[in-house]
Parts: sequence; structure tokens; C-alpha cells
Amino acid sequence: MILDRVNNPQDLKILEMSELSALADEMREIIIKKVNTTGGHFGPNLGIIEATIAMHYVFNSPVDKIVFDVSHQCYPHKILTGRKEGFTNPEKYLTYTGYTAPEESPHDLFKVGHTSTSVSLACGVAKARDLRDEKYNVIALIGDGSLTGGEALEGLNNAAVLGGNLIIIVNDNDMSIAENHGGIYSNLKLLRETKGQAEQNFFKTMGFEYHYIDEGNNVEKVIETLQKVKDTDHPVIVHLKTIKGHGCAAAEANKEVFHWIIPGTLDTKGNYTPPSEAAVEDYNSITKDFILEKAKKDKNLIVVNPATPGVHGFTPDFRAKLGRQYVDTGIAEEHAVAFSSALAKNGAKPILAIMTSFVQRTYDQLSQDLALNNSPLTMLVYWGGLSGADATHLGSFDIPLICNIPNIVYLAPTNKEEYLAMLEWSYEQNDYPVAIRVPAEPLTSCGAEDKTDYSKINKSKVLEKGEKVAILGLGSFAGKAKEVKEALKQNTGINATLINPVYISGVDEELLESLKADHSIVVTLEDGILDGGFGEKVARFYGNSDMKVLNFGGKKEFTDRVPLEELYNRYHLTTGLIINDIKKALNMEKIHVHN
Amino acid sequence: MILDRVNNPQDLKILEMSELSALADEMREIIIKKVNTTGGHFGPNLGIIEATIAMHYVFNSPVDKIVFDVSHQCYPHKILTGRKEGFTNPEKYLTYTGYTAPEESPHDLFKVGHTSTSVSLACGVAKARDLRDEKYNVIALIGDGSLTGGEALEGLNNAAVLGGNLIIIVNDNDMSIAENHGGIYSNLKLLRETKGQAEQNFFKTMGFEYHYIDEGNNVEKVIETLQKVKDTDHPVIVHLKTIKGHGCAAAEANKEVFHWIIPGTLDTKGNYTPPSEAAVEDYNSITKDFILEKAKKDKNLIVVNPATPGVHGFTPDFRAKLGRQYVDTGIAEEHAVAFSSALAKNGAKPILAIMTSFVQRTYDQLSQDLALNNSPLTMLVYWGGLSGADATHLGSFDIPLICNIPNIVYLAPTNKEEYLAMLEWSYEQNDYPVAIRVPAEPLTSCGAEDKTDYSKINKSKVLEKGEKVAILGLGSFAGKAKEVKEALKQNTGINATLINPVYISGVDEELLESLKADHSIVVTLEDGILDGGFGEKVARFYGNSDMKVLNFGGKKEFTDRVPLEELYNRYHLTTGLIINDIKKALNMEKIHVHN
Repeated sequence: MILDRVNNPQDLKILEMSELSALADEMREIIIKKVNTTGGHFGPNLGIIEATIAMHYVFNSPVDKIVFDVSHQCYPHKILTGRKEGFTNPEKYLTYTGYTAPEESPHDLFKVGHTSTSVSLACGVAKARDLRDEKYNVIALIGDGSLTGGEALEGLNNAAVLGGNLIIIVNDNDMSIAENHGGIYSNLKLLRETKGQAEQNFFKTMGFEYHYIDEGNNVEKVIETLQKVKDTDHPVIVHLKTIKGHGCAAAEANKEVFHWIIPGTLDTKGNYTPPSEAAVEDYNSITKDFILEKAKKDKNLIVVNPATPGVHGFTPDFRAKLGRQYVDTGIAEEHAVAFSSALAKNGAKPILAIMTSFVQRTYDQLSQDLALNNSPLTMLVYWGGLSGADATHLGSFDIPLICNIPNIVYLAPTNKEEYLAMLEWSYEQNDYPVAIRVPAEPLTSCGAEDKTDYSKINKSKVLEKGEKVAILGLGSFAGKAKEVKEALKQNTGINATLINPVYISGVDEELLESLKADHSIVVTLEDGILDGGFGEKVARFYGNSDMKVLNFGGKKEFTDRVPLEELYNRYHLTTGLIINDIKKALNMEKIHVHN
Repeated sequence: MILDRVNNPQDLKILEMSELSALADEMREIIIKKVNTTGGHFGPNLGIIEATIAMHYVFNSPVDKIVFDVSHQCYPHKILTGRKEGFTNPEKYLTYTGYTAPEESPHDLFKVGHTSTSVSLACGVAKARDLRDEKYNVIALIGDGSLTGGEALEGLNNAAVLGGNLIIIVNDNDMSIAENHGGIYSNLKLLRETKGQAEQNFFKTMGFEYHYIDEGNNVEKVIETLQKVKDTDHPVIVHLKTIKGHGCAAAEANKEVFHWIIPGTLDTKGNYTPPSEAAVEDYNSITKDFILEKAKKDKNLIVVNPATPGVHGFTPDFRAKLGRQYVDTGIAEEHAVAFSSALAKNGAKPILAIMTSFVQRTYDQLSQDLALNNSPLTMLVYWGGLSGADATHLGSFDIPLICNIPNIVYLAPTNKEEYLAMLEWSYEQNDYPVAIRVPAEPLTSCGAEDKTDYSKINKSKVLEKGEKVAILGLGSFAGKAKEVKEALKQNTGINATLINPVYISGVDEELLESLKADHSIVVTLEDGILDGGFGEKVARFYGNSDMKVLNFGGKKEFTDRVPLEELYNRYHLTTGLIINDIKKALNMEKIHVHN
């Protein structure tokens, strides 16, 4: 294999053109095998193999600096920069993260996984170079829908006038996760159709020199153009047309499905069979059922989603059913929030679906466009909670982010019936912006319809009345709270009070006050970092009292693919460790409890 | 006066063209007089008078819906929509806020004051209209630098393909607060120079129909074009060339100075005399001195600012002295943070200056581009703290925003020497992203150089060792903490311990632990909302102990021009109220204290 001779970018430079193409095929084969085994970003990486080889052939990394965006298209780059074992050796399959990571290699400049960051970051690298009177190429590779994020557009506007060498490669595969949306993409389409010749050129209007590569999956063609722009003394756009999933028929035919795949998506013959519609009920399916049912009766319902339909199970079929009542904004979370707020303010009923990790991109819109205007929308926040995720996609910061903004009501459902009742209330009310933290766990049912009146803001539910110890288990930690109660009873005889706080964004002052009568310890459990979170509000409430408060949750830190079990041990979030801490606080630590 | 006959937009429609022009002159006169009396946004409003008259002449507000952006250019709109008394009657000068405010008038759609929001909001209004099968015009007026904010660009990308009536008026006065920057503005310049005829047209590339108005300060000309686009069935751009400060010679000649003025900027004859360089030392002046001194020796120093030089006293002279070591990113806070992080990671030494209210626009960049990469930059956060500001420009949310992101060290200096020592440490270190909350108060000096080693993260300073009560006065509340200590001594005989926490982003666990020996109450004072803030971290620390904790700070709410004194009373932040609360906690409430 040619790949055997390639351990770093220097090794590429002595290969023949024909060998480079053959190398691309070898890389394609190992990426397909590896990703179909471990899961991961599939289509984006197959599409960018040839261009990655070309970049490393033409440029001199790490002296020349390449910034990847979305950095999930960095697998070929990792293979060429000393990390091929992570793709060839099944035992090392999990060694490297799926994003650029400076701790792995000097060829990776930034630890990034969110989209739309590369142009601004590359501007910074280029400006630092110029201040220091150094000479090297700075390259931003941006694609897979990243171009429409506000940060990327702010970056382009500034890049155009930065001065000095800067090469922005726009990997145009005509897709983000799903199809692309918006005026900019209409222009990219026109440019593709005219092979870059159209008069109206988005990049040229900003002042960029513009180059078009029609065969972005042909190593030689890409090299030709990159050699032209290498060592440029001004900002340049290289518009690179590639095919998402290139070289894998199933992936080319099912671009959205193959953006990110789970293990075993391709069978042993490399074929793909779409799964039959899952008969299994989960939070995605009941959400969709709720939406379709409402939409039938209410033309004002509208679903807004910033480019992550797959996360929510918003299949093409579901989207088609909603028709004009579904808007994919593309990767544009800021727009999605402001747009939804205005919809709500003008008689529509928006349901905004967004991932925890990406809701971070909208703080000011949540605060100013939404909360300050008190628009009555429903925001469904997915995948919140501690997890073994990559540091770039943690879901543990949403509670401090959302809960400390005035006016927003943030709800933490603990089972199916509660979730549906919250959805119903939120959808029908007109008084608050409501966010609901959709449970990331398998669906649980309590078996009985929830008739709670959720307009009684901050009203918690006392599930089991006990004494001495009160346990507040927020949302996804409700089950853990119940386990703790039972273990405490078994270990100490204490019959603790079990509380479902329901609201993340405020505390039930009346209930907390009443607990003072016959409780000495309040325990809070939350599935996220403690700093700025729910438990601290309870601690503040009791600051001026004799009540002891034990807050359990995550630490303020970026964790990187740390298994959840390890995090639970680290943060004292196993039942055994929680019980031990409670007993210490009760001065009963002599009775030892096993986890 | 013609204005006497105009109480709402309907009254305009029966006026002759010549009367409309005369009306513009009358409005100009009262705006100049009013704003020069109260202070406020001057140039932007003088520039948009004619276009506002034209909009209300052509369209039918509030059935047709106009979204203002930056909404600080809404004064002429307020005059024409039932609020002229706020501009003609000195006794009513302070009745209305300087931004659009739905509680004042049905002609104001949104409570907004941050930039770049109008296109996304207008998209939401238009989409709601279409879902409901209603018919009316939706107009976004965007200008004064708003166009380069990420939210606006995300909005434009989506607006282009939204379908249906949407009219985006780009008020191009060639300025934001200071001069504009970036590739988009180069294109606007080209379009102005060619009277809209240039082939390369940023808006057309996105798919918009495009109209150009060369005489944007001529009512008749603006009306002509708006009549053409009224009732359009697709998204349209109207590129309107106006003159910032139009009709006031001093403002036209000094556009940056006259963006926002303080009372009495014009003398009685309407002339402007630039103030002589202030000899008074303040936090702005010592920051600038620090920067210029460093820059002389260090070519790697670079100042980055997203379009608010006036806030920081970054005068044209100061900027010129820094040359290529100063970058104004325009209104593009996300870019500014990512750009600065990359600068720091590649050997430059960025100092990013940003206002509290606008740092909100960068949460994800602070988290992902900056903190996750642990880039050693210095971020100066200005105007933090409770204030009587408009609801759209509060500075009280930065503590929960910044402090709950891992890795960022957020410092709260309490005087000149401490601030300079922190700046020095932050600038020279290479281990952390450091934010410093620049005091918004007049400069105070302790008279002695600060030799603290700030690399000892979270290490607080014990200023006066006492007993029973410990008072932690954070940053700008250090003076208040000292007053409380003194009043407590006088009233109760208790000699409290006085602590300067120094770090906002973490607590000094060792010190807090040690206080348990001879203290029963810890009091925290912070100049911002309590939710998610510093005090709650102290409350959590002591949750499992007998220490009582009293947290003093603001409530999680949007306040709208509520005088600071009233807020201090509301939040128990006067010395008297604090002392009373401490005495209650000490069960000494019988001794009454006057504020």
C-alpha cells in the first residue's frame, strides 16, 4: 500500500500524481471500514480526501497552518499527519477524537468542533504572523454548511480587508447535515453551474480574489489551483466543488443519512438498507406525534430547526408533512432564535428544536430578542446532561446559560407524561418563553396522564413526603434521586422526602421554606455543571438558615470523551457516593455503603 | 408648525411634498435641541429623518410593520407615532426610552437595542403573516454598522429565500459608531459610487431584488422608491444612502463624536468645540497609557475592539499611534473573540476591549474558540454592574455569563494599582484566558504599588482581619463592603473581617474554610445579578456547614431606566439595609439603623 510509505505530509511530496490518486482510494477504504465500525462522520470525510491530500502536497504543514471547519472533516488530515493507526488498526480506532485536537498533533491548530469558526481563527493566525513579520501560508477549510453561521460571515467580512496571505477553501458539497438553505447557497449553486464564471459572485463582492475548482475530488486538479494561490499576498477564496460521500455509492445516494452514521450502517457488502420506521416509542417519536397532531388543527404551528433534523428525528417525510410549517434555517442558530421570537410575537406558534451544545451560540438572542420581548415560544433543548462526549460537544452548560436569563421558564420533565403535559402547556400559553430539556435517556412512563398546571411557575412536586432529608432530583436525575432515597432508607432508616423540582429556572420558595420544619438536609441532584446552576440557587436560598445543602452535579470543566461512569465517580454522582456524602453530613459516616 | 398637525402617521398622508420636507426640518430642530439637552444618539437620528417620514407616508403602520435596527435611530419614528411631546416638551424629555419599546406604542414591534437583529425579526414577522394568510408589508430598517453582525448576515441569508413580502432598507451612512470595516462595506462604497449600478452587488448575489436611493435625505426621492417596492411579493433590498448627522454642520463634520453625545455638546450657537485632552486620570486613560507603553516595546501587542472605540477612549489619535497593532472588527463580536483567541495562540498578545452588554453576543466563542483552547488573551470588560440603563443595555449579566465557563479567569479590580497589576500579569502570562472587569466608577487609588502574584488563581485578599462576620466585597462593591464593615462596628461593636475576593470566577476555598473557625456569617456583595453569580458559589461552598451566608446583589430581571438608588433599595444594597439584614441574621434586629 502507498499509505504504508506515508507517515507525514513530507512523504506525500515525493509521490507521483497517479500514486496520490491511488492513495486517496486507499484512504477511502480505511475510512469507510473504520467509521462503519465505530460510527462517526462519514460523508464529509469521504468528500474531502482528495483535497486534503492536495493541501498537504502543496502546503508545508505545520509551518503553513490549516484550520479545519467543520473540524469533523479532518479524518483524512489525521491519517496524513501521523495518526493513521487510528484508522488502520481496530485496536486504536478510539485513540483519536473526531475533531482537530492540538494535543494530538502540531498539525492541528485548534480544538474546535462547532461550525463556522475557521475564517475568524485563520484571520487571527494570519494577523499574528504579520505582526511578528513571519512568512507562511494560512489556510481555512470551511464547508459542510459552516458558511452560513454568523461567526463565519463576520469572519469573511473581516478577512476580505485583513491584508496579507490568507487562503479560504470553501468545500462546497451542496449540503450541511441536511440540504443547505439560503441566499448564499443559491449563489454557490449558480457558481457551480457556471463553473465559477457567473457575474454575480458572493465572494467577489466582498473583495476576494476567487478561484473555482470544478473537480474537487480530483487530486491533480486541486493541486493545480492550490499551487496558483500558494504564497499569495492577499486574501483568496478557493471554491471547491466536492461530492459528499464520494466513492461510496450508498453515501452518495443518501447524503443526509450518511452525514454521521452509527456502527454497522453499511452491511458486509457495503450496501445500505434504510431501517424500517422504528416502532419503538421514544422522546423523538412522541414529540413528532405531538407536532403533527397539533399542526393538523393549527395552521399557526411552525417548527424551526437550525440544521440538525437528524438529532430530532425530523425525517424528510416528517418535514414534507409539515410543508410550510417547517423551517430549516441552516446553520444559523442566532437567526433561528430571533426568527422564532418574532414568529411568536406575531401570532404564530413556533417550536424551536435545538441541541444543547449549539444553544450556546445564541445567548444574546435568547436574552435580547427572546426573553426581553417575553415571546411565548417553545424551545426544545436536546441532549442536555453530562456525557462521555467530545469536549467540543458537551451538553452540560445549558442550565447556567439559560437559567440566569430573566423571563425564560426552563422545564425539566422526568417522564413521558410529564413531558407531553409540559409541551401542551407551553404550546398553548402566551405568557413566557418556555424551554424544555428533552430527556436524553430512554423514555420512561409513569402510566398516568399528568394534569399538572404548569402556569404555577416554579411550583415543585413533592413525590414522597418524608423527613430529615429532602432530595431534589432534577429532570434526568429523577431516577437517581429515587434510588438515593431508597438506599438511604435501607442504610440509615431515614425516610427522605423526594421532590421533583420541575422548573430549572427558579426555586419553589414556599416549599423550600416549609422543609425547614422537619428537615435538616436538602440534597440537589442536577445533570450538568454545578456552577451557576440549579443547586446553587437552593444553597443561596438556605444561606441564612440552619438547613444544610448538598449540591451534586458536574464540575466546571471541559471533559473530553471521559466515560460517563468515570465522571459519575469523579463528581460523586453514584448512589453509593451520594449516600456516603449525606451520611457524612448527618454525622453517620461510620455505616459504610457500597456503590 | 407643520408638526402641530402631525400626531400619527395618518396625518402625514395628507401633506404636500413641500410640507414633508419642511416637517423634516422642524423635526431636525427639535431633535437637535432635545438630544443636546438630555444626551443621546444624535447623528444616526438626524440622518434618518427624511426616510422615516417617507416610510410612514408610504406604508401603513402599525398594520404594516417596521423593525428598527439599530433601534437607536428611532427618534423621528417616535415623533411621528404619538410621542412627539417627548421631544418638544422639556418636561417630557425623559418619558420615552431611546429605543423601540412596544409598551410605548403599537408602532414599536420589539424591545431591542443591540444591533443586527432586524432582518431575522422581520423574517419572523413575515413568516407569521404568511402562515396566517394575512397581508401587510414587513420592513426592516438596518443601518449604522448593524449589517456586519453575524445575526444580520444569518438573517439576510435566510431572508433571501423566505418568499413573500419583505422589504429590507439598508441605511448606509458609511459609519457604525466609528468608520465601518470589512468587505461588505467595500461593496456598499462601490455601489454608492456607481449609484447602485456596479456589477458586483452583495445583495444581488444572495438573490435579492435591489433598489438604490442616492438621495436618502430627500423625502420625495425616498418616497418614490418605497412606493415601487410597497406590496412586493418577494424580498427586496432598498439601499439608502444617507448622511449621518445630516443638517447639523458640526455633526456632519465630526461623525464619530456625534454618534452619541452628552448634554451640552453643542454650544448655544450650535457650534462644537472639541474638549481638550482630559488631564483627569481615569480607568480609560490608565488603560491607554499601559497599552501605548507596552506597544513601544512589544510589536506582538494588538488591541482588538468590536466597533466601540468611544467607550474605551480609543480616540483616532490613539488608534493611529497603534497603527497595525489596532484592529476594529466592526460590529462583529463573535469574530472579535475568535480572532483574538487565534492571535493569542499564535504568538501575538491581544487585548480585547468589549462592553458588558455586548460580550453577551459571544458566549459560544468565549467557550469554544477561547476557553476550550485556553488561549492567553486579556479581555477588558467595560461598564459591568447594576445601573439605571435602558433594559437593552444592562451590564449586570456578565458574571454568570463568563464565570461559569471553564478555564477563563475573571478578575475584579478594586482600585487603580490593583487594576494595573492585574493588567500587567494578564498581559505577560501564558496560561489562561483572562477577563478583567474594568471598574465603571471614578478611579480610586490606594497609593501603593500592588505586588500581588495573580498567578495564584482564586486567592482572595484579607484586607482587615476581624471575627464573627466576614464581608466579601467584589470589585466595584469593595467600597460598599468597607462602609458596611464600619457601620457594623459602629452599630453592633462587631469587628468584621473585610475581604477582597479578587477573582470572580472561583472562590478561595482555603480562606473560606479557615473562616469557619471564628466566623458565623459570611456576607457577599456583588455588582450584578445574584443568579449564577459569585455569591451563590460561596453559598454552595458553605452548604454543608454551620456558616450562614448572606448574598447581596441584583435580582434576575430586566430593569428599564430604573434609577440606581431605587435598585439599591429594591435589592437591599444600601449600607443601612445590608446592616439590618446582617443583624437579623445575628438575631440583633432590635437595634435599628438608618440608611
